[in-house]
Amino acid sequence: MNSEETNNNLSQLGEFGLIDRIRNQVSDSDSVAVGIGDDCAATIIPAGELLLTSKDLLIEDVHFRRDWTDMYHLGRKSAAVNLSDIAAMGGKATHLFLGVGLPKTLTATEIDQFTSGFIDEANAAGATLCGGDTCRSNGSLLISVTVHGSISPEHLLCRDGAKQGDLIYVSGTIGDSALALAQLQRGETPAAYLGQRHHSPTPRLELGQAIAKNNLATAMIDVSDGIFSDLGHILDQSQLGAQLIQNQFPLSDAARQHLKNNPQDAETALRGGEDYELLFCAPALNNDKINQLATELGVPLTQIGSCVPASQGLTLVDAAGQQRPIQSTGFNHFR
Amino acid sequence: MNSEETNNNLSQLGEFGLIDRIRNQVSDSDSVAVGIGDDCAATIIPAGELLLTSKDLLIEDVHFRRDWTDMYHLGRKSAAVNLSDIAAMGGKATHLFLGVGLPKTLTATEIDQFTSGFIDEANAAGATLCGGDTCRSNGSLLISVTVHGSISPEHLLCRDGAKQGDLIYVSGTIGDSALALAQLQRGETPAAYLGQRHHSPTPRLELGQAIAKNNLATAMIDVSDGIFSDLGHILDQSQLGAQLIQNQFPLSDAARQHLKNNPQDAETALRGGEDYELLFCAPALNNDKINQLATELGVPLTQIGSCVPASQGLTLVDAAGQQRPIQSTGFNHFR
Repeated sequence: MNSEETNNNLSQLGEFGLIDRIRNQVSDSDSVAVGIGDDCAATIIPAGELLLTSKDLLIEDVHFRRDWTDMYHLGRKSAAVNLSDIAAMGGKATHLFLGVGLPKTLTATEIDQFTSGFIDEANAAGATLCGGDTCRSNGSLLISVTVHGSISPEHLLCRDGAKQGDLIYVSGTIGDSALALAQLQRGETPAAYLGQRHHSPTPRLELGQAIAKNNLATAMIDVSDGIFSDLGHILDQSQLGAQLIQNQFPLSDAARQHLKNNPQDAETALRGGEDYELLFCAPALNNDKINQLATELGVPLTQIGSCVPASQGLTLVDAAGQQRPIQSTGFNHFR
Repeated sequence: MNSEETNNNLSQLGEFGLIDRIRNQVSDSDSVAVGIGDDCAATIIPAGELLLTSKDLLIEDVHFRRDWTDMYHLGRKSAAVNLSDIAAMGGKATHLFLGVGLPKTLTATEIDQFTSGFIDEANAAGATLCGGDTCRSNGSLLISVTVHGSISPEHLLCRDGAKQGDLIYVSGTIGDSALALAQLQRGETPAAYLGQRHHSPTPRLELGQAIAKNNLATAMIDVSDGIFSDLGHILDQSQLGAQLIQNQFPLSDAARQHLKNNPQDAETALRGGEDYELLFCAPALNNDKINQLATELGVPLTQIGSCVPASQGLTLVDAAGQQRPIQSTGFNHFR
């Protein structure tokens, strides 16, 4: 057996061989005092800034299916969905930590593809992979990511600051990812653009930081579970209701085309999650600045509704102009 | 159905109900600007200190079996094994993050027991649970923990600082956990003390900090994979060999009693991991101070060997006085 064949076998490579292989792909960073290979990573947080931390579990056949994605994009998405949480607070991404539970059937080449995607996504965000955990899984592929970021305390954007009368905005387009997922679940092949939005979402880090630094918003969240569910968290924590206007929801050309051929998916586009766009509330007087920022960054920022008293709940003016109440619950993992 | 029955059902409780339930068990902390319930936690790292981060995946039937432990102690151990990594760098534990993938069969009561154990262990370490992730698992119970700590840069203890001639010490006793595990694997009931050491290890945080603050050691690691494997990491990174003396290995009374009745387990006691004791190297001139620290803290610190040139490798003078080479590999997850 030549060494390439040997090294493609996880049992031969071993846990520490695998860790060395990952470490060799990571560039040095001034903010990392101790990186991969000790009991802990030791990192430097900019003086006077808050440390932002989020973690996500991605479980095979719950969060992803390996026959629907390639390992490189699974790696990118695993980093991206975590980085999106930093964007949602207005923060700068700094460090990533990757834990994996690996089924025996996975080859070292597949793991290399996964880590390449993960590291490419980290690099695109200016964040450094500096630790984690590798172990065997008896069943599914398990991915556990922790992301660090930082932000000045005065710029921190939480979910609880929205005010009555604030306008509600969303970045980019919504529903693309959910439409792709619905097609995959039906055994259909999504349009390329929808598939890309599902498999390789882009965390809105630059946008999140610009919104925070310019004090444009009162509350912000990323769209992971779906507009209604994620807006629901802002409304709960800010003690507000909201009125949304369906005709203002920003849809991509690909989503419009899809809905023309599949009108039954309209509700999926509205309710679906995993777009990883930013949803935020802002005083009406910031509207011009928000439009200007959209132009500067080349990211659409669309007003889709406004905040109302909690007693009015969450309502949607639907495509037919009828106002109807909305259950804000999105994806419930325990249903 | 009364509300207690309703709430014991995860599907009824829901993801956000469960998160609320966990949040209600956590005390406030001055170092937490934003805790459970936003996109990220926002925490405060002491000015001038390095951030220490470690993460561990614990997978059912790989790292633990639910028929061998109760949920409360599984919670404690999940926190403890992570906190031990902070101890191994000499750091102070500050914050914990908990991700769980929950099988459908788990009741809310069982999850409460688990989180109670986790939070009790966090509190004992002076650390605050301030975020995480909850989702459904199709199969095993999955636990993903991230721990944060902090330390002054000048006190940081890594694996690469050991010097030729340094003495090698280990805290507490070793082999207890591995002997309990061997018995569980054979369907036997371990002695109470050995079982407790396996199911409820104590992270040596106070000891680790004292060793670091007093500059007593040159390199340190916690014993998770086994003495030979963990010392192997120090030797690799410090480019050294070591000679260990088996008769000096500190064994508990319970382990000695067990080995009297089960002499076939001698190698298990030597090689086994999960004691979560601290293993460190120190110049011989620090020996008196180390003995004094052991007395002050009431934790045995035993010299078990010394560092030699790398060319001599890792050897053990066994119980019969014979010197033999040791393969430093401990637990390899991918074998």
